[in-house]
Amino acid sequence: MASAEMLARMKAIVGPKGFIDGAADMAPYLVERRDLYKGRAAAILKPASTEEVSALMRIAHETGTPVVPQGGNTGLVGGQIPFETGEEVVLSLQRMNRVLALDVDNNTLTVEAGVTLAAAQAAAEDADRLFPLSLASEGSCQIGGNLATNAGGTAVLHYGNARELVLGLEVVLADGRIWNGLKGLRKDNTGYDLKQLFLGSEGTLGIITGAVLKLFPRPRAMTTAYVAVPNVEAAVKLLRLADAATGGLVTGFELMPRIGIDFVVKHLSGASDPLTSPSPWYVLIELSAGNGSGLTATLETLLGDAMEKGLVTDAAIAVSQAQRSAFWRMRESMSDVQKLEGGSIKHDVSVPVSAVAAFISRATKAVEAALPGIRPVPFGHVGDGNIHFNLTQPVGSDKESYLARWDEMSAIVHGIVRELGGSISAEHGIGRMKRDEIAATKSPVEMELMRTLKRALDPKGILNPGKVVSVD
Amino acid sequence: MASAEMLARMKAIVGPKGFIDGAADMAPYLVERRDLYKGRAAAILKPASTEEVSALMRIAHETGTPVVPQGGNTGLVGGQIPFETGEEVVLSLQRMNRVLALDVDNNTLTVEAGVTLAAAQAAAEDADRLFPLSLASEGSCQIGGNLATNAGGTAVLHYGNARELVLGLEVVLADGRIWNGLKGLRKDNTGYDLKQLFLGSEGTLGIITGAVLKLFPRPRAMTTAYVAVPNVEAAVKLLRLADAATGGLVTGFELMPRIGIDFVVKHLSGASDPLTSPSPWYVLIELSAGNGSGLTATLETLLGDAMEKGLVTDAAIAVSQAQRSAFWRMRESMSDVQKLEGGSIKHDVSVPVSAVAAFISRATKAVEAALPGIRPVPFGHVGDGNIHFNLTQPVGSDKESYLARWDEMSAIVHGIVRELGGSISAEHGIGRMKRDEIAATKSPVEMELMRTLKRALDPKGILNPGKVVSVD
Repeated sequence: MASAEMLARMKAIVGPKGFIDGAADMAPYLVERRDLYKGRAAAILKPASTEEVSALMRIAHETGTPVVPQGGNTGLVGGQIPFETGEEVVLSLQRMNRVLALDVDNNTLTVEAGVTLAAAQAAAEDADRLFPLSLASEGSCQIGGNLATNAGGTAVLHYGNARELVLGLEVVLADGRIWNGLKGLRKDNTGYDLKQLFLGSEGTLGIITGAVLKLFPRPRAMTTAYVAVPNVEAAVKLLRLADAATGGLVTGFELMPRIGIDFVVKHLSGASDPLTSPSPWYVLIELSAGNGSGLTATLETLLGDAMEKGLVTDAAIAVSQAQRSAFWRMRESMSDVQKLEGGSIKHDVSVPVSAVAAFISRATKAVEAALPGIRPVPFGHVGDGNIHFNLTQPVGSDKESYLARWDEMSAIVHGIVRELGGSISAEHGIGRMKRDEIAATKSPVEMELMRTLKRALDPKGILNPGKVVSVD
Repeated sequence: MASAEMLARMKAIVGPKGFIDGAADMAPYLVERRDLYKGRAAAILKPASTEEVSALMRIAHETGTPVVPQGGNTGLVGGQIPFETGEEVVLSLQRMNRVLALDVDNNTLTVEAGVTLAAAQAAAEDADRLFPLSLASEGSCQIGGNLATNAGGTAVLHYGNARELVLGLEVVLADGRIWNGLKGLRKDNTGYDLKQLFLGSEGTLGIITGAVLKLFPRPRAMTTAYVAVPNVEAAVKLLRLADAATGGLVTGFELMPRIGIDFVVKHLSGASDPLTSPSPWYVLIELSAGNGSGLTATLETLLGDAMEKGLVTDAAIAVSQAQRSAFWRMRESMSDVQKLEGGSIKHDVSVPVSAVAAFISRATKAVEAALPGIRPVPFGHVGDGNIHFNLTQPVGSDKESYLARWDEMSAIVHGIVRELGGSISAEHGIGRMKRDEIAATKSPVEMELMRTLKRALDPKGILNPGKVVSVD
């Protein structure tokens, strides 16, 4: 229970600027943007330094106070939102928003956890470098949250997940000790790679307070095509052909179904299909390189070759930056336009790339059998095996009664994902949303290992308790 | 103590083909190739399956028998060699050498731990793919050992360390439980990334029995140049210029000092300096791409630009595969030729790339001040900040008394590494060699975290005890 005395001690550490306990001021920290998860808290704490985070955690550990770390509050599985008890405190990193160091020769950027992803991208760009992590929420999400959730996005194909974009971390442990692992080394085999524990652990094993991020050269040239493919198998074959032909220059490869293009053309102002005849499937393919010489020619040769092989039926290569943006806008609005067609039951799943076609085919048939007229809109990062398998309600049906079947549809989809060796949370994590589902479906050994780690690093269970893994 | 009864139980599991206890037959498993580490064992166990590893570990756990996992026995820090007590058993993975699955559309190769690195490379190549890990010992080292030690090598610059080349693992835990994490997924955020615990833990937290490896497109074209640079700063600037000009096509970037070239020309049959005038430093630079169009032109433009900027004084671009091989042979013999000049005190260190020049300059001055006439031969993976800072004895001095100063020289070199935020074991790991040195120099919090993990995952301390971290 959060006593007034304890809260006073915490307030003394962060000062009045870092302490919120009025209901109205706390509200924005207690609900996520879609209103799916709401909670209560004894206070919102906004420390301004690692030492303040450490001092807060020492008190939390001493008093057994549960702490919910929070970044930009953009997570989609409720990991950053407290439960309803009101006994937790939210620890927001938003005041720790300084860029600490930029090392252009080492290609590293050292930041506090509360720096937004957009600010980190901008700091890299100012130094003629690229920080490739790219998400829809990049304007407000924070690096600490990106790393704590091992964020994905559209650049994973070429640059990897957030986990692969970090060289060093600073973390405050459950008992307030500070682990300073802010090293900018590309090779370091001096013992266990401790940062890996905290990356992707959703704040349940420690609180990330700082990071050394990897930077990359900025691509000087990009070429983008909107490509009609006859089926999903052809899309995967095209990806491997593109790999082989370019030796790793494919930086974007996104799948879209015809129904998604129909929705875009219908609902997105100014959008039109760049191709004249409809195709059941489309791929947005992008190549990037250090210099532009021959990149478009490479893409033309690739697409010509793919047409001869029957993998591509038509294609449009962007001839201007405006057209390139228009292509990407179609892909990026694929989720939003579904809202205008009624209720959407969403899945963020992955399977081996070789199983994407089988997954989409089987899952589509299964949900159509369960609910005739349902409109699957599978799209996404086919090169990562990561499909957003979204299901739009049947035309003219009732939205509420459709959404009431969410768990039923998820059980069908996730069952097929598991049979194909896939993941029921490719990018978004576990949080509150999927905690019980993973506990029921992972092997007992895996769940025991997760609990072993949780107990070893947070013996009092005060770090984001009830998220990811339950030890009770 | 290894009782006859327990050994009989273990023998019953692995059968006569998997059990060695004769002194002569055990000998090759009890010493490493440079004769630096020797030990004794109660038996060598060679299980043929994960289930056999599991059954052995159950007995070891029950009886408190220490187990030393061993791959190809090519490690350089003694991690794979038992101590002198004779109470340990060595568990060799060499009979588990099957390639289990190849998935070309998913770009994955699933192997048992005892598959040699060369065999894994060959299996990838047969499918027109690349498994990029590349080490001097690749003919005999095994994937299990590569992953357990997070092996590095010359391809790290572009493809990452071994840790980054694996998607899934199968591991037998200290108590014999099997964790099957053999997934081939590029995105999976369903809880803690357990494989990270075992990668690089040198067999102290679990025994890796299988892995899903990431494959890449095979480069269709390569171009290689031997480049004279005026100093180490220029080499680093050249690397960043090459990054920017090629957008990530630099797949090799190795630094060599003049003295190393002198040694090569003097001792390596058929070797000659490709350039006419001597330079204090050289870089071997290699670009790779999916197709060859313009790659050599790109390199020529880059080198011309670098000459104008004063970063390069002369260069030779390989005009044939034979010349390319000759360039690489100079780099690859850099360690061997030092032997012919007398004793060599070796260091495998890394610093931020931006600190490489300062490190080499400071460390050179410091060892020269301690021992006038000493001949530093710093070379290696400058793009990873990983320098093999080898010190050849003064001309005409006594080898034995020179090598007796190893610890003194290491203290000087490692002291400077630490001041620059570096690592005293970039690639080779800790094993027996550096266990006490890291314990004395890492932060108490970091050492406590390592011990916490060791205790949590191996509570009886039977997995490669006394390596990496001591919990006594």
